[in-house]
Amino acid sequence: MNKRIVVALGGNAILTDDPTAQGQMDALRYTSEKLVGLIEQDYQLVISHGNGPQVGNLLLQQAAADSEKNPALPLDTLVAMTQGSIGYWLQNTLKEKLMAANVEKQVASVITQVVVNEDDPAFKDLTKPVGPFLTEEEAKQATEETGDTYVEDAGRGYRKVVASPKPESIVEYPVINQLIENDVVTVSAGGGGIPVVASNEGYKGVEAVIDKDFASAKLAELVEADYLLILTGVDNVYINFNQPDQEKLEEVTVKQLKQWIEEDQFAKGSMLPKVEAAINFVEGRPEAKAVITSLENVNNFFEGGSATVVSLD
Amino acid sequence: MNKRIVVALGGNAILTDDPTAQGQMDALRYTSEKLVGLIEQDYQLVISHGNGPQVGNLLLQQAAADSEKNPALPLDTLVAMTQGSIGYWLQNTLKEKLMAANVEKQVASVITQVVVNEDDPAFKDLTKPVGPFLTEEEAKQATEETGDTYVEDAGRGYRKVVASPKPESIVEYPVINQLIENDVVTVSAGGGGIPVVASNEGYKGVEAVIDKDFASAKLAELVEADYLLILTGVDNVYINFNQPDQEKLEEVTVKQLKQWIEEDQFAKGSMLPKVEAAINFVEGRPEAKAVITSLENVNNFFEGGSATVVSLD
Repeated sequence: MNKRIVVALGGNAILTDDPTAQGQMDALRYTSEKLVGLIEQDYQLVISHGNGPQVGNLLLQQAAADSEKNPALPLDTLVAMTQGSIGYWLQNTLKEKLMAANVEKQVASVITQVVVNEDDPAFKDLTKPVGPFLTEEEAKQATEETGDTYVEDAGRGYRKVVASPKPESIVEYPVINQLIENDVVTVSAGGGGIPVVASNEGYKGVEAVIDKDFASAKLAELVEADYLLILTGVDNVYINFNQPDQEKLEEVTVKQLKQWIEEDQFAKGSMLPKVEAAINFVEGRPEAKAVITSLENVNNFFEGGSATVVSLD
Repeated sequence: MNKRIVVALGGNAILTDDPTAQGQMDALRYTSEKLVGLIEQDYQLVISHGNGPQVGNLLLQQAAADSEKNPALPLDTLVAMTQGSIGYWLQNTLKEKLMAANVEKQVASVITQVVVNEDDPAFKDLTKPVGPFLTEEEAKQATEETGDTYVEDAGRGYRKVVASPKPESIVEYPVINQLIENDVVTVSAGGGGIPVVASNEGYKGVEAVIDKDFASAKLAELVEADYLLILTGVDNVYINFNQPDQEKLEEVTVKQLKQWIEEDQFAKGSMLPKVEAAINFVEGRPEAKAVITSLENVNNFFEGGSATVVSLD
């Protein structure tokens, strides 16, 4: 059976400098060409992606037209909408590059709900800024009207913050698994997934943002992937980054990474969650590996080049 | 094997009087309960849906925030976004009602591209109004800037019109078929599908709106459904509607319907496309039937009650 790779696309795989639909599809055309390179090497691909800039723009649009007849929709629905838009762009450009490579394969994007725990401490410590920047006055008023929490963001104004809970399961993973088994290239868990909490009655959407690398690690665990491939702007993770003794990481173990995390070697909100997601995955699936590298380097790495590869030990 | 039904949900199955996400999910909870009734009668369900009010609101939101950094996205992408939102709401409420009925089944929404022909005469005769109402002055300026066509709409202002071409195929139907064969309840071809034209290089999104009943008929043909079930506000289609000799239609043939279409018995943009979609389906699949009825009457009909049922002869 072919090796199974869950690929988590970083922001620059979708949005470079042109936020029009055409601009984002152009970026994804390049991304898709690289990913089809992996399919040509007989890997089975499961693709997930971020949605930060897209859901940010959508929040601004919703706020700009908010009225009784056209009410702003909540964050869980907006994540679903970006799964629709980015899923469409990706399946369209993947199909184009598959046809160019003469590879006969179906592609499908699946709307994905990701289960979080309502007792996750993240719901008490809101850290993820979303939506427009407000003045202090506007933020105060919004808090009074909605009960939402606003915090000052880097001198640029006040922004609403929401929880960033950990993914515990993926509602649609049996379907995704079935599609993979039928050799369909799937796009799923986009934007970290639609956050829902589980009860005996079903699933309920909540206002939260799930880190896309954590969601991808959970997906990779559930579909029993051989590799979790986390794409970012650089070919390798570094320690002592930008210092005279900086060191490029190639083959590393979970134990080493945990030591470096204690030394604050990885930037919060940037490389740290990727390293943590890689650790989560290989701890749950000891025979598998997590790879952190750039989109540009993907095919080089799988043909024997260097990237940061995380093994349990 | 269980009988396969493609259900085309009408607008009131999603949006009643409350356009909030919660309000639309409440309407879909009721819809899902009715549909689960069919699943309990061992029918295999493939669900499609309209998106008129939702894509309309989204167009207004996009226009309200349109800027270089946050450009309004084109109609094909917006259809994809409503497939995301409505697909999420539907799969969430269906799962809830399946759990309440103790039925173990997976549900999945698939982002769906529907192929139209770029030579379709609809691209020369734009008829489908979309987006905000403009003044005559604004409409003139928009036409100059974009080349788009605007027409006066019922005294309420000027609206952009786009093509409403016929669906020729569905890119993802092999995947949808595979899901049905694996007993997954699927949501697909939402909003008539994302309109694309085909070339040797792939598929390209176009600015158009595909009638959701025609798209559902095409989907029903491609997945070899036994029934195409078109849901609307009434239990039956009528002729001589609202006249002393009005007649409720129960069992009808394509030949009869074609005669009544010539007599202008069915309202354009309302019952006519449903009747035409029903005809298209049974002409392409002579052993199958098309049913036009209300959501409320769905289970009554399948237990032997009355609805309008279209057979080839």
